[in-house]
Amino acid sequence: MTDADARARTVLERCDALAQLTEEPGRLTRRFATPALRAAGERVEGWMREAGLQTRRDAVGNLIGRRGDAALLLGSHLDTVRDAGRYDGMLGVLVAIAAAERAPRPVEVVAFADEEGTRYGTAYLGSAALAGRFDPAWLERRDADGVAMADALREFGGDPEAIGSARRDGLLAYVEVHIEQGPVLEDRDVPVGVVEAIAGQTRAQVTFAGAAGHAGTVPMEMRRDALVAAAEWIVAVEARATGGLVATVGEASVAPGASNVVPGRVVLSLDVRHGEDAVRETACAELRERAEAIGAARRVDVVWEEVQATPTVTCSPDLTASLAAAVTAAGHPLVTLISGAGHDAAMMAEVAPVAMLFVRCAGGVSHDPAESVEVQDVAAAIDVLDRFLSTVLYRVPIRDPGQEGRSE
Amino acid sequence: MTDADARARTVLERCDALAQLTEEPGRLTRRFATPALRAAGERVEGWMREAGLQTRRDAVGNLIGRRGDAALLLGSHLDTVRDAGRYDGMLGVLVAIAAAERAPRPVEVVAFADEEGTRYGTAYLGSAALAGRFDPAWLERRDADGVAMADALREFGGDPEAIGSARRDGLLAYVEVHIEQGPVLEDRDVPVGVVEAIAGQTRAQVTFAGAAGHAGTVPMEMRRDALVAAAEWIVAVEARATGGLVATVGEASVAPGASNVVPGRVVLSLDVRHGEDAVRETACAELRERAEAIGAARRVDVVWEEVQATPTVTCSPDLTASLAAAVTAAGHPLVTLISGAGHDAAMMAEVAPVAMLFVRCAGGVSHDPAESVEVQDVAAAIDVLDRFLSTVLYRVPIRDPGQEGRSE
Repeated sequence: MTDADARARTVLERCDALAQLTEEPGRLTRRFATPALRAAGERVEGWMREAGLQTRRDAVGNLIGRRGDAALLLGSHLDTVRDAGRYDGMLGVLVAIAAAERAPRPVEVVAFADEEGTRYGTAYLGSAALAGRFDPAWLERRDADGVAMADALREFGGDPEAIGSARRDGLLAYVEVHIEQGPVLEDRDVPVGVVEAIAGQTRAQVTFAGAAGHAGTVPMEMRRDALVAAAEWIVAVEARATGGLVATVGEASVAPGASNVVPGRVVLSLDVRHGEDAVRETACAELRERAEAIGAARRVDVVWEEVQATPTVTCSPDLTASLAAAVTAAGHPLVTLISGAGHDAAMMAEVAPVAMLFVRCAGGVSHDPAESVEVQDVAAAIDVLDRFLSTVLYRVPIRDPGQEGRSE
Repeated sequence: MTDADARARTVLERCDALAQLTEEPGRLTRRFATPALRAAGERVEGWMREAGLQTRRDAVGNLIGRRGDAALLLGSHLDTVRDAGRYDGMLGVLVAIAAAERAPRPVEVVAFADEEGTRYGTAYLGSAALAGRFDPAWLERRDADGVAMADALREFGGDPEAIGSARRDGLLAYVEVHIEQGPVLEDRDVPVGVVEAIAGQTRAQVTFAGAAGHAGTVPMEMRRDALVAAAEWIVAVEARATGGLVATVGEASVAPGASNVVPGRVVLSLDVRHGEDAVRETACAELRERAEAIGAARRVDVVWEEVQATPTVTCSPDLTASLAAAVTAAGHPLVTLISGAGHDAAMMAEVAPVAMLFVRCAGGVSHDPAESVEVQDVAAAIDVLDRFLSTVLYRVPIRDPGQEGRSE
């Protein structure tokens, strides 16, 4: 076994150990400010100390380990969705610790207390605090058992009144390793990929309102079938999703919803993502026009409601170039991706240049117990992060895109 | 007010009166073998007697009024769906009584105790008994309150052990007047239409099984989106429905059904109807092939399950010609239709030649409190039925299609 493999095995064993720390017997669920998260934090804190890091917790319950006068932050999150896999979040924290242990310079590792938002329905509690974007109104939110966030946080050992103190200014970089949660790296047969941006997203609700009718007695030419209109548009949505744009209709509700009744009303969800905001916005405008044109031709009313629009977060070109150089130096083909999923890095971009390294995961599956990574791919991620930390000039703003030459 | 109008007004006043006899205050719900149905039957029995009919009830609770040695049966049903309109069924019974009162020869009127199947989930209990198709196993069925059909029927005054005695052989005709439950007559601007056949129907459940995935991270070209496959097919179903074929996807369930998840599985209902069985069967076979082709192209598995297939019931050409002649003689344009909805006539066709006359209803709406008919259209229906009864040779099998010449 190589040294890299041994370190990767340790990381995976630690993922296995953390997977036992759950709120629900038999499946992994670890939400913000729960005893399970506390237990996971204590295990990670022990590993941080073994790696030579000085540990502390901030006001929102994030665990932070530091070696030296660090301004380069590595990390990810320790909380999970319900019935989760064991790598989403945790892998990034544990790879960061593995790399921090050998890093030739000061480095800091953060294990965020909340990214998924499973308990309070608002994601990124941990990184929002570091980014100075934590809204104190969130502290009033209650979980499914009626427990206010402020009370849960206090019980957890945090300090709801002092969340402002968790803000971190002056960071030179935030770098996150994360499983891809998609199938691209597997498809390209590479262990890791460099993230260029975290895609902006538009979510909309699109309603098609026609007229219900008897499936046996209303002739086809007299129908105002909301579902056929919706179906025509769903096909058009797929056809419009080219050039890296992804567009998904994930929900459809049909009313009245009986086999012998022509559908009178269909409500669809739309999710559109792309690494360039203008491309996404143009696509959404065209899809809206298309829905309205289909509706007009079919005498079906169309109502478009934008639910959410979040802009693209571009990773730091300098840091990303360093990460890409490290990937190439490690002997892997360079694959760059746009992250379609959100990550703590998107929030951290508010206060620091960010970079992300994705690790191949089996079938692109995540948020599922079937989440799986290969030890060699974890070894590759550790190796790349080692090389990155050895070469990146994180105390000086990095401007030179030619630094690939410095890799080993 | 003409005499025809006065008789029509009486029919509509009786519909209003029956609408008050309901199981649920504030809305019309009158299921099989309930006190509400009993009360409605008693009112109708009184009107039958006023019309000179001798009344009786058969073993399944149908109310039958007869004048003379009748072998020509008119009728429809008195039960309703939940929150029903006041004409579906009742209008046919009351128009039949109005016509029977003046008929120049023996005639019989039946008010079926169940057509909708609202209480026991099996339709046509009343006409099935007359047709000798009542399955004694149905008596074991229980309603939502756990009451067995046999007990309800006994309480209602029927005789579950003697249902075989309700069978009627030797009928020369069964003729039913019913609201259209569709928009064709309104669209053609005519009060009544002659039904040539009750369409055969195929019901199928079609499942598209692809692969769920993250809406942000799975590139379009790697998706196996079950909903886009289903949508492509829904559009194809509509395109295939030509030449009087009606085809409807009325239900769609999408799993997992989250806005940020590519749909992995979609289950659709399909309802196909046409007046010719071969046309319907060919269309279903083609739609199945089309679904499979779409699935194959998209790496989405398609499972086709036929839920039900009922053949077309063709109305008696002789009776229908007589009815058509009566419509023409009454001065109305002749519009012939295929009934897309099922009716007691379809069951009665097992034991007798059948004919049906549809009455225009507002917007084609039925099974809804908004069900509405115009008094002039009811007058037209009574007039047509009068003319039909005056001319049809119902004691002798009718072979001569040239009998239009006999109409007044």
